[in-house]
Amino acid sequence: MAGHESERNISFLGEGENKSLLGGKGAGLSAMVKMGLPVPPGFTITIDMCRQYYENGQKLPTGLMTEVRKAITTLEQMSEKKLGDKENPLLISVRSGAAVSMPGMMDTVLNLGLNDETVGGLISLTRDARFAYDSYRRFVQLFGKIVLQVDEASFERRLTTVKEQANVSFDHELGEDTLRMLVTDFKKLCREKTGKDFPDDPYTQLQAAIEAVFRSWMGKRAMDYRREFKITPEMADGTAVNIVVMVFGNLGNDSATGVIFTRDPVTGDKKLYGDYLINAQGEDIVAGIRNTQPIRALESELPESYRQLDKLAKKLEDHYKEPQDVEFTIEKGKLYLLQTRAAKMNALGVIRSTVSIAKEGSITQSEAIQRVTPEHLEQVLHRRVDPLAQKETIAHGVPASPGAAAGTVVFDADEAERQAKRGTKVILVREETKPEDIHGFFAAEGVLTTRGGKTSHAAVVARGMGKACVCGCSNIVINSLERFFKTGDKIIREGDSITVDGTAGTVYLGQVPTVEPEITPEMDELLGWADQVRRLGIRANADTPESATLARRLGAEGIGLCRTERMFNHPDRLPIVVEMILSQNRDERIKALDRIMALQKGDFKLILQVMSGLPVTIRLLDPPLHEFLPSIEQLLLEIQKMETAGSSPVLIKEKRGILEKARGLFETNPMLGHRGVRLGITSPEIYEMQIRAIGEAAGELMKEGVDVRPQIMVPQVGITEEIEAIREIYGRIKSEVEARFGVSLKIKFGTMMEVVRACLVSGEIAKKTEFFSFGTNDLTQGTFSFSREDAENKFLPDYAAKHILDDNPFQVIDEDGVGRLIQLAVQEGNLTNPKLEVGICGEHGGDPLSIDFFHRAGLTYVSTSPYRIPISRLAAAQSALLSKQKK
Amino acid sequence: MAGHESERNISFLGEGENKSLLGGKGAGLSAMVKMGLPVPPGFTITIDMCRQYYENGQKLPTGLMTEVRKAITTLEQMSEKKLGDKENPLLISVRSGAAVSMPGMMDTVLNLGLNDETVGGLISLTRDARFAYDSYRRFVQLFGKIVLQVDEASFERRLTTVKEQANVSFDHELGEDTLRMLVTDFKKLCREKTGKDFPDDPYTQLQAAIEAVFRSWMGKRAMDYRREFKITPEMADGTAVNIVVMVFGNLGNDSATGVIFTRDPVTGDKKLYGDYLINAQGEDIVAGIRNTQPIRALESELPESYRQLDKLAKKLEDHYKEPQDVEFTIEKGKLYLLQTRAAKMNALGVIRSTVSIAKEGSITQSEAIQRVTPEHLEQVLHRRVDPLAQKETIAHGVPASPGAAAGTVVFDADEAERQAKRGTKVILVREETKPEDIHGFFAAEGVLTTRGGKTSHAAVVARGMGKACVCGCSNIVINSLERFFKTGDKIIREGDSITVDGTAGTVYLGQVPTVEPEITPEMDELLGWADQVRRLGIRANADTPESATLARRLGAEGIGLCRTERMFNHPDRLPIVVEMILSQNRDERIKALDRIMALQKGDFKLILQVMSGLPVTIRLLDPPLHEFLPSIEQLLLEIQKMETAGSSPVLIKEKRGILEKARGLFETNPMLGHRGVRLGITSPEIYEMQIRAIGEAAGELMKEGVDVRPQIMVPQVGITEEIEAIREIYGRIKSEVEARFGVSLKIKFGTMMEVVRACLVSGEIAKKTEFFSFGTNDLTQGTFSFSREDAENKFLPDYAAKHILDDNPFQVIDEDGVGRLIQLAVQEGNLTNPKLEVGICGEHGGDPLSIDFFHRAGLTYVSTSPYRIPISRLAAAQSALLSKQKK
Repeated sequence: MAGHESERNISFLGEGENKSLLGGKGAGLSAMVKMGLPVPPGFTITIDMCRQYYENGQKLPTGLMTEVRKAITTLEQMSEKKLGDKENPLLISVRSGAAVSMPGMMDTVLNLGLNDETVGGLISLTRDARFAYDSYRRFVQLFGKIVLQVDEASFERRLTTVKEQANVSFDHELGEDTLRMLVTDFKKLCREKTGKDFPDDPYTQLQAAIEAVFRSWMGKRAMDYRREFKITPEMADGTAVNIVVMVFGNLGNDSATGVIFTRDPVTGDKKLYGDYLINAQGEDIVAGIRNTQPIRALESELPESYRQLDKLAKKLEDHYKEPQDVEFTIEKGKLYLLQTRAAKMNALGVIRSTVSIAKEGSITQSEAIQRVTPEHLEQVLHRRVDPLAQKETIAHGVPASPGAAAGTVVFDADEAERQAKRGTKVILVREETKPEDIHGFFAAEGVLTTRGGKTSHAAVVARGMGKACVCGCSNIVINSLERFFKTGDKIIREGDSITVDGTAGTVYLGQVPTVEPEITPEMDELLGWADQVRRLGIRANADTPESATLARRLGAEGIGLCRTERMFNHPDRLPIVVEMILSQNRDERIKALDRIMALQKGDFKLILQVMSGLPVTIRLLDPPLHEFLPSIEQLLLEIQKMETAGSSPVLIKEKRGILEKARGLFETNPMLGHRGVRLGITSPEIYEMQIRAIGEAAGELMKEGVDVRPQIMVPQVGITEEIEAIREIYGRIKSEVEARFGVSLKIKFGTMMEVVRACLVSGEIAKKTEFFSFGTNDLTQGTFSFSREDAENKFLPDYAAKHILDDNPFQVIDEDGVGRLIQLAVQEGNLTNPKLEVGICGEHGGDPLSIDFFHRAGLTYVSTSPYRIPISRLAAAQSALLSKQKK
Repeated sequence: MAGHESERNISFLGEGENKSLLGGKGAGLSAMVKMGLPVPPGFTITIDMCRQYYENGQKLPTGLMTEVRKAITTLEQMSEKKLGDKENPLLISVRSGAAVSMPGMMDTVLNLGLNDETVGGLISLTRDARFAYDSYRRFVQLFGKIVLQVDEASFERRLTTVKEQANVSFDHELGEDTLRMLVTDFKKLCREKTGKDFPDDPYTQLQAAIEAVFRSWMGKRAMDYRREFKITPEMADGTAVNIVVMVFGNLGNDSATGVIFTRDPVTGDKKLYGDYLINAQGEDIVAGIRNTQPIRALESELPESYRQLDKLAKKLEDHYKEPQDVEFTIEKGKLYLLQTRAAKMNALGVIRSTVSIAKEGSITQSEAIQRVTPEHLEQVLHRRVDPLAQKETIAHGVPASPGAAAGTVVFDADEAERQAKRGTKVILVREETKPEDIHGFFAAEGVLTTRGGKTSHAAVVARGMGKACVCGCSNIVINSLERFFKTGDKIIREGDSITVDGTAGTVYLGQVPTVEPEITPEMDELLGWADQVRRLGIRANADTPESATLARRLGAEGIGLCRTERMFNHPDRLPIVVEMILSQNRDERIKALDRIMALQKGDFKLILQVMSGLPVTIRLLDPPLHEFLPSIEQLLLEIQKMETAGSSPVLIKEKRGILEKARGLFETNPMLGHRGVRLGITSPEIYEMQIRAIGEAAGELMKEGVDVRPQIMVPQVGITEEIEAIREIYGRIKSEVEARFGVSLKIKFGTMMEVVRACLVSGEIAKKTEFFSFGTNDLTQGTFSFSREDAENKFLPDYAAKHILDDNPFQVIDEDGVGRLIQLAVQEGNLTNPKLEVGICGEHGGDPLSIDFFHRAGLTYVSTSPYRIPISRLAAAQSALLSKQKK
């Protein structure tokens, strides 16, 4: 059957199910026909034809239109109507549909087949002249916009004028005559803009519509979307064209159109969810132009149809084993399904429904793990508005995409993009959004619309991107010309701040504080399954007892990176640190260090206690000392001020002393400077103090019966002799502490692998260490000779635009360069020290693509910030499953 | 014989010649005995005994003294004298001697065997009581200092007091009674300092002296020397002890002592060279206490001895096939040789004598190449005083070690070390130098003494280190207490500047300008031989027509690195460059670039013409743009000044514009910033301009019939796509230029390999390039995560002191890290592009150790600064010979 399909250029609904040939929409319709569900007759022009269209230099493949004509003839037989017939005209829809769902990104033409003659036939068939002319008007407008590329605003301006003249507010209040006049007017507009008559011949219309759909595959919107969501040609390479007999949801109050989800896309609850409109066509729903009814209302308005829908929904979900998003139309009481696809659900919905489907037994736990993406978890782990914060509510709307976001108001997508590029966080505020606003979504922190419900364009796109969105805030009135909006008596201008809470549907004035998210029971369950599957350990980067507690709660199996410099930087400690730096001799320095040690020991005790039973990797001091002093500029300024103010010469002299020290410590390239182990070698008393603090903290807790597992990590090592020198200090102090406390300390001693040379001599370093932990941030800097902050500000954006680097190597591990060094170090390290523990504590530890690499490279664990731990747990499990499948 | 030797702990002179067992001095003496030359009887305690002494915890091996006693008995038979005999006493010298010559670094005891009884015997033997007591006094003083470790100053103070009392200036003016009194006094001093009687028993003296010699192997001076000259335990592991019957050069005017070189150590001329003193002991010469006579004077004073010496010298050089440095003593008309060793010659002397010996046929050209070290060439290539400079001569002395050096005056070695550590260039000024001043030599730029000749300690050490030295400046009077010296009516205080010209023996006031050295015909000859042997090509780093001309004269086979930024930095171009940087749009920028292009094209034409027929590798712009702007601090200051001065608002605004740009371009780590190819990608018009300038320069010269071979090198490449992007620009512009000039340009396109990642993806980069050139400076920075200037200022000195890094990796290539990356890149680059040319243009291209690595790594060429080209030519030849020998 599949082989048969692939040789044909046209496939009737009910024949095939191959998504890569028929596209998602075509395959879905076809599957529904096979299942005996009510779908209007239709056929699909395959994606192959689209590829040939482009290979042909944007010309339809020879013979395709002949085949289409033949297929139309079959459709005519099935529907007992005829395309272009004056009395019994067949009307069809022409829709795009790629292998991967790209909702709203490509084009659609409805009511195709209408012209001045066939409209008469439609009137006699429906006995509804107003309906017929409204359909005709919609067709000319849509065809004009999509196929003839006449700008939509021209149509809308005319429509608005006509509505004003007729003194009505809505399209559906316009009468038959006005609509007829609008058809003529719109056709004239098309002639003016294109220089050609509007085509009356249905086959001319059809061919042009097919070409337009193919063309839209390479439209800016579609290409932006594919780039943003990383849809490669292997995943989708062209669009199919679906030609289906029109059915009408706008033939009176026994007609309707709507969209249902087989589960609640926000919560994942197994119940019908969606919106519909009585007496409307599909695009009215999607565009969110009229406010829709929740689907439950259909149960009372059209009970039979509702029951039918409910049954069909269950059948579809059983078939696909995942929640579906279904378009339907009821024409004079008869239900038709017009599309089914995997429901784009909110991340929480995906997780809940996936876990529930797995528990129902339809899919395995492994399948469940693979169905939920790390991005889903990331969305669930979004921030929410602090419940305890003082806040002023200014509007309420539909909670369309959860999460909280604060930013300054902008009124169009271009402005959103401009401001975001400047680093401003923005909230995009629109009456409704359209596919052409897509770049505004990418740029905005959150979206607010005044029209449309949960299935409106804004809601669907925002959920897909995991951005906070509030829809249908009807109490907000936007003046986009003067760039403000009004709600109640409040005026919010472009540039003012608001906060949107997409979980509750609330809009607040100003920037409201937000708090960190919580883990749901379903997530916990899913992550539990993931934990059974993954090989990689997951640890946290945490350096306070609070973040350690959080990390442990989120599933961390230890701390992979506890930075000690933050403890130095604490405001009540910094003066002692400065004193230490300024000390004139070793004695003074040691006196200051003793005071710091008491404080550090306290910090370590708290963290070790929280993580009892689990490893805690403490990194010795890393930054260069000048980072603890004020900048030279600042000091110069302060001295100038003191002199002008006539301050005491003693104070000025003291300040000058700091300036002199800062000048002495100044470095041209601090990233490559006197820091980490280099400081440990030249000022051993600092590392001695830190090692002693760790040893004593561990010793004291052991005495109290706490199971402590500290690991001491030396940063910036590149030379075997460096780690040897520090190991000697470590050994000496460990013995001293053990003697003093009468305990045997279980400490691991290791090095951060963040200097290129360390990887190149890893075999030697491994002999002196019990663990490696890759610091992939610095390692990436050294490998590329990129200073991260300079690179990200100056040239990485241009590198991405010019495809020199598609991924930012500071976010996604560079496998060819940095990855090669890591693999080499893992291999050679294991060779000389088979017991070596090898982790990674750079930012890449929370990135799923990078985690997959670390899994393949044979690392022991990854360490990441607490809120990325669930993501890393899932990603590690997925990597393990993927490796198993590849074997 | 060797096997036989190695089993014995004592070897008589004339038995063996194994340097590693007998040390250089012992082996030399033994060889001379074998050759029938006049050497006093003696024997050598082997170096094995020294090793055992240290393995035993600094105790003499059991049984050794029994063997020594037996050997002494043999000596007694040979000399017909007896150790400790009242009538006919045997006196012996006890001298150190390691496998590698370490002149003056270890200890010696002379006249051993004297006591209150034997001194009587010496009187009756010599009939010279004054001589006998002087010998006794010398023995007690030397034994006290060396063996009993009584500080020398105490002896000298007493000696000075006695001379004052006797109203004489020199030791030799003291009479018998005074000397006898001094012996008693010195012995008392030893008892006071050590709490024990001075040993009278000759065997007690002998054992203590042997132990003292062994002990001196691990003395500070000896260890410093070995570290500085990189003498490893494989090269020398302990000292032998040479015990030889004393002969006396101070037995009247038919006695003498002296040192000869078989060739002039400065010029290499084959004629006796050296100094002697009538009626003196050896140490009087070496210490430079009395001003010596040139050896030619001996011809008239003791003609028979002179003729004998001249004959023996030729015999020795024929035997050793290299110039010898020979100690001799004439005792009452009879000549004795006391030591022969390879002459420490001035570099020029080494080169001339080596070339001459090779041309005489005694050694092969390959041996000659291996005998001259790169350090020798380096010394010859020392700077000299500018003959045209205005200068004020303040003193004249012996031209003891050539080269010119300027610096501030210091009067002791410790101060020299302190100031040099602070970065001050110093000239060490002393009456005479002693082995304990060795650290002062390391620290100083040059040395000036008021006493001693060409074989004085100062002269020998300075020549060995290649430092400028003027000796015996008797018109200078030093007041080391008040820290100044006087010459004529001039007072020069510590801290004042002087310049010493060790080639002419002149001392100038202040800092005199110096000029670059010239190549001698012998060097040319030797380098010609080297060129026939070496496999590595040698190119120059040069970016002006002048330096290109010089490089070509010094043997460069092309330019391996022509930096273009220096052309940007030229004072009359910088304003245009700044204009380019400040330009508001592409048009403005291109207008400025057009003006720069005309100038760059001119530069390229000149250099290409000078190097016609040879490759010229031009590196496209490397530094970040902000390097061409004034610093932010400077701009702030200027604006402040302009505002205070009430300058025109237009000018202030303009300056503010520059400040804004400088702020925009500011980078935290410029080393890792927006530079090199990164700039080429984001501002392609700069590289386009440069490529066009190169292409047009080549095109115009080709039209004139010049054979031009430009190579375009892209800096900072780390990503394959970077080089692809620039290659595309290059291809386009090359075609344009070719079309315009109607020529086919022969340009090579390649990349600088200076980013770690480039080495890791070298196989891919090689597909897009025709050559690699390693930029080992930046590659070392990236591999170690060291910023060179920060590292060398902040922690590398400490790293050297603590043996974390014995060599500065910016001077000597780090084989384990950087070298591994280079090897990998060479292998993988050659794999995908077998025609790939691979060079290196970092500073390491002029370092012999690194050159040996580059030879082994299979590079095509090294490129270095013009004055290091001869060194690189020689080093490359030596590497080639070494590889051949290893095969």
